[in-house]
Amino acid sequence: MPPLPEILSQLNDDMRANDTWGDVAAYIPELARVDPAQFAIAVTTDDGDVFTAGNADTAFSVQSITKVFTLAIALGRSGDQLWRRVGREPSGRAFNSIVQLEQESGRPRNPFINAGAIVTTDEILTGREPRDTLAEILQFVRAAAGDDNIHINHSVAASETAHGHRNFALAHFLASCGNLNNTPEKALGTYFHHCAIEMSVRQLAMAGRFLIETPKFPRMILPQRIRRLNALMLTCGHYDGSGDFAYRVGLPAKSGVGGGILAIVPGKASIAVWSPGLNRYGNSLKGTQAMASLARAMGWSIF
Amino acid sequence: MPPLPEILSQLNDDMRANDTWGDVAAYIPELARVDPAQFAIAVTTDDGDVFTAGNADTAFSVQSITKVFTLAIALGRSGDQLWRRVGREPSGRAFNSIVQLEQESGRPRNPFINAGAIVTTDEILTGREPRDTLAEILQFVRAAAGDDNIHINHSVAASETAHGHRNFALAHFLASCGNLNNTPEKALGTYFHHCAIEMSVRQLAMAGRFLIETPKFPRMILPQRIRRLNALMLTCGHYDGSGDFAYRVGLPAKSGVGGGILAIVPGKASIAVWSPGLNRYGNSLKGTQAMASLARAMGWSIF
Amino acid sequence: MPPLPEILSQLNDDMRANDTWGDVAAYIPELARVDPAQFAIAVTTDDGDVFTAGNADTAFSVQSITKVFTLAIALGRSGDQLWRRVGREPSGRAFNSIVQLEQESGRPRNPFINAGAIVTTDEILTGREPRDTLAEILQFVRAAAGDDNIHINHSVAASETAHGHRNFALAHFLASCGNLNNTPEKALGTYFHHCAIEMSVRQLAMAGRFLIETPKFPRMILPQRIRRLNALMLTCGHYDGSGDFAYRVGLPAKSGVGGGILAIVPGKASIAVWSPGLNRYGNSLKGTQAMASLARAMGWSIF
Amino acid sequence: MPPLPEILSQLNDDMRANDTWGDVAAYIPELARVDPAQFAIAVTTDDGDVFTAGNADTAFSVQSITKVFTLAIALGRSGDQLWRRVGREPSGRAFNSIVQLEQESGRPRNPFINAGAIVTTDEILTGREPRDTLAEILQFVRAAAGDDNIHINHSVAASETAHGHRNFALAHFLASCGNLNNTPEKALGTYFHHCAIEMSVRQLAMAGRFLIETPKFPRMILPQRIRRLNALMLTCGHYDGSGDFAYRVGLPAKSGVGGGILAIVPGKASIAVWSPGLNRYGNSLKGTQAMASLARAMGWSIF
Repeated sequence: MPPLPEILSQLNDDMRANDTWGDVAAYIPELARVDPAQFAIAVTTDDGDVFTAGNADTAFSVQSITKVFTLAIALGRSGDQLWRRVGREPSGRAFNSIVQLEQESGRPRNPFINAGAIVTTDEILTGREPRDTLAEILQFVRAAAGDDNIHINHSVAASETAHGHRNFALAHFLASCGNLNNTPEKALGTYFHHCAIEMSVRQLAMAGRFLIETPKFPRMILPQRIRRLNALMLTCGHYDGSGDFAYRVGLPAKSGVGGGILAIVPGKASIAVWSPGLNRYGNSLKGTQAMASLARAMGWSIF
Repeated sequence: MPPLPEILSQLNDDMRANDTWGDVAAYIPELARVDPAQFAIAVTTDDGDVFTAGNADTAFSVQSITKVFTLAIALGRSGDQLWRRVGREPSGRAFNSIVQLEQESGRPRNPFINAGAIVTTDEILTGREPRDTLAEILQFVRAAAGDDNIHINHSVAASETAHGHRNFALAHFLASCGNLNNTPEKALGTYFHHCAIEMSVRQLAMAGRFLIETPKFPRMILPQRIRRLNALMLTCGHYDGSGDFAYRVGLPAKSGVGGGILAIVPGKASIAVWSPGLNRYGNSLKGTQAMASLARAMGWSIF
Repeated sequence: MPPLPEILSQLNDDMRANDTWGDVAAYIPELARVDPAQFAIAVTTDDGDVFTAGNADTAFSVQSITKVFTLAIALGRSGDQLWRRVGREPSGRAFNSIVQLEQESGRPRNPFINAGAIVTTDEILTGREPRDTLAEILQFVRAAAGDDNIHINHSVAASETAHGHRNFALAHFLASCGNLNNTPEKALGTYFHHCAIEMSVRQLAMAGRFLIETPKFPRMILPQRIRRLNALMLTCGHYDGSGDFAYRVGLPAKSGVGGGILAIVPGKASIAVWSPGLNRYGNSLKGTQAMASLARAMGWSIF
Repeated sequence: MPPLPEILSQLNDDMRANDTWGDVAAYIPELARVDPAQFAIAVTTDDGDVFTAGNADTAFSVQSITKVFTLAIALGRSGDQLWRRVGREPSGRAFNSIVQLEQESGRPRNPFINAGAIVTTDEILTGREPRDTLAEILQFVRAAAGDDNIHINHSVAASETAHGHRNFALAHFLASCGNLNNTPEKALGTYFHHCAIEMSVRQLAMAGRFLIETPKFPRMILPQRIRRLNALMLTCGHYDGSGDFAYRVGLPAKSGVGGGILAIVPGKASIAVWSPGLNRYGNSLKGTQAMASLARAMGWSIF
């Protein structure tokens, strides 16, 4: 097996070798105007080394990947109480589906679909102000990454707010079922802002270290909780494409509509990849391909 | 950590310490009259040792657990062609739901829900007779277990046929969508018979070795296919309780309505557990508890 | 207003004036080979006069229109007990949908979708043999039409049986929910045969007289039951196109996949129309247009 | 047959003879505190006579009954263009269901479920201000009733706004599908206000005259449109209880959650009934019973 840097370099070349990049998310101008023909990958190993290839220092909108961090925070604050409000099962439906919410009386299937992530955000927000909640989330992400140069892009958040009717529908529906402690406006305002956090793959791979479970990295959450977060990422991290990702890649991972994916190799490594063009499930097209290649090349599948 | 035999013995005692056994499946007399207050566990390690506790040599109806073996056979025969007929995503619905089948034009979500397993059986059956197909399935299971004393219980199969209206509904629906090569009667006859295979946990743990991926056991299927079968078991092996099992246990596994569960510790071990009382998802109540305890005690979660 | 014969004659000319006939039902050869370019209409008034235009003596397969007669018979035998097994609400779904059946535990929404008509047939069949049941249905239809020359086309029934996987799926599903007294084979055998009754529009318009509620025609069912059957035809007689038919035509009516429609003008007339080409709801394309024109020309809308 | 006033008086006595009044709507305080033990009925015949019984001059919140008036206005303004945005089929679901909206890409099934009425309101509102739109609606209702003493209860509207999360979910969902011309806040503000119109049964029965189709009353909308509105009321006027109402009463009618029902006897009369206790579909319990009795006593079923 060639060494990891060489593998990443080759992967970067391979990904750029063809021009099928997929389409970028188009529902807000801030994401629509990103050049799809970009690719970056970073791996942080359990002993703290970071290896990268491609546009590894370009910051992008991590979007739904923050759901991993907010879930970790919510579990830290509320423990298993959180599961009264949200389930742990794959939804078998699109990330923004409202059908299941009606059929199941306002309890979202899992914390990684939009409705579930709004509930998770609402849980953290309860009893506090949005600005304090956002400060805590940013602080958690920066501490995990060991990097204070991570910020929220406020124009992305503002644009989400202006175009987010589907998320407003979800939040009002949750409120109508009594599963929202704050107003829809307040919960969504916080939600849109933490989704607008920007990181490079280097920063994101570093931030993912807290899910590796290794003695070499300062523990941020309980080991048992790490395993459970990884289990949720494996079964629910890619919406209705989760089964396919598990089948092809075999790693717990969370994707975002900005084209990023964070994957964890338990006990060994954290991987961040970014390429803004998406496949039909709304997950990064080249990012998924690269994850599959890397997992195969390194023998990193957990199965 | 105490040695494995001691852990299993303790687990057996723990499971028998309380009387909440759950209810046995009641839809056919052969399953309904099984005493729920039974428990057995067996572990086969990658070097071929077998450790057991409880009623380890009592044969039980493996039911849906055979779907793992028939899927392995179908992939061996048809390769990725199989995925034209059946998907790889968690269904988010009960094992016998027909709703999704209508919404998705007769392509079952995955090979482990009933509709998907009927399609998988139909794929193996294509161009052959049921008796030859059943002989091949039995031969595969016996070879995997290294034990020729594994049989089909024909009265269970006959009873399933007599009471299987829901499965007939699924098969006819598949036929109406053009996703059945054989008649519903022929496909279901074969399906009911392979579900009626009986094994003890000792035999089942031995039969599960082919999914461990270890050089010490003769290879029956390609390593990459092993990883993919395990991935499917993790995301879809417990129907709409798959996410919960992954969260609590963290191992790829397949359950059957007879109360058995087969779980794989990749590279390390195969575990079979049996207790006929079921939880609300139709999975073994004590079996699930035992799997969670064992995985925690041994540090076997893949996450 | 010109006299009725003149209106019908003009309508016949109008319908033949353009060549958009729609497609005939293609799921069985016996229906697939019917020439779509045919049109016939017949009106029986409350004083017993019959007026026709077009191919008024060509027999066609009435298919789902028999559901009106079997419902009348079932209500006569079982009264309101029938409503324990089937509802009275529009389904909002296709005629052969199985989704709602699962969501509502095997109680079909109304007696005019396939599942509901299978239950209705099963109700009549209970305690008797198919041949006696079919004899009673035929006798009822013949008595209503005052015409003994009405028959079942057995090759149509045989073809439905051979190709009727979707209906077998519905019947087995009903059986699995305990909502079938007879075997699926027996209930469906009877169902397919009464759907295969053939009539001309002249015969069908005559047979529809029992729903006019007029003292001039011998009473076959109670007046209150007539009004209720008409109400069901209005709300449910055209599957998920019922609202549109009510909006455009304004008459209680039942369509069949053979291209026939029977409509009732309460207290005044019975109308039968036939043109085998279908619209996207599976209802006769020209038949629907003709019904709308006739109702408008005669001021026959009940609204 | 006894004369109408005598029938109404008897009906009033009958309805008050037992104490099963049903529960009033409890989702806003203004409706929750209404005494359920009230009953009123009024009939306006085609020659302009009005007959009443019970609390005939008590004003109540007409709620969804205004959907009939706004639909008439919207069709007057936009004609058949309206049907691009909303369907004409029974929904087979609850009045506030969002499931179908997702499955059918944001086009509500009909104008009488909440989503469809929001679209209808939005259509009237397009290009104008809420206050002008509300003035037009009030003017139409007052003209129809021949009574200027009809008003909006602003505290009811304010309360709906404060508690209307489910309607906000629907409106945002419509907006996300591009089926809302105004902001959800503006469309809903107008919607909540016209639903908060208050009338007595006397006023409501008078206002219903425009749907009778009689030369004796000044024509407000085209005769063909009258018939079509009545057809929609028959198939969709009572949500998922529409089929049952058609079966038991046999008249086009629209109910409101305030306990009122407006029914039309085409060519003959307009009936308004009010009793605030509701049945399980959200329609007036005693109101439905009274409509059934009156239609039977007068032979007014359209079937």
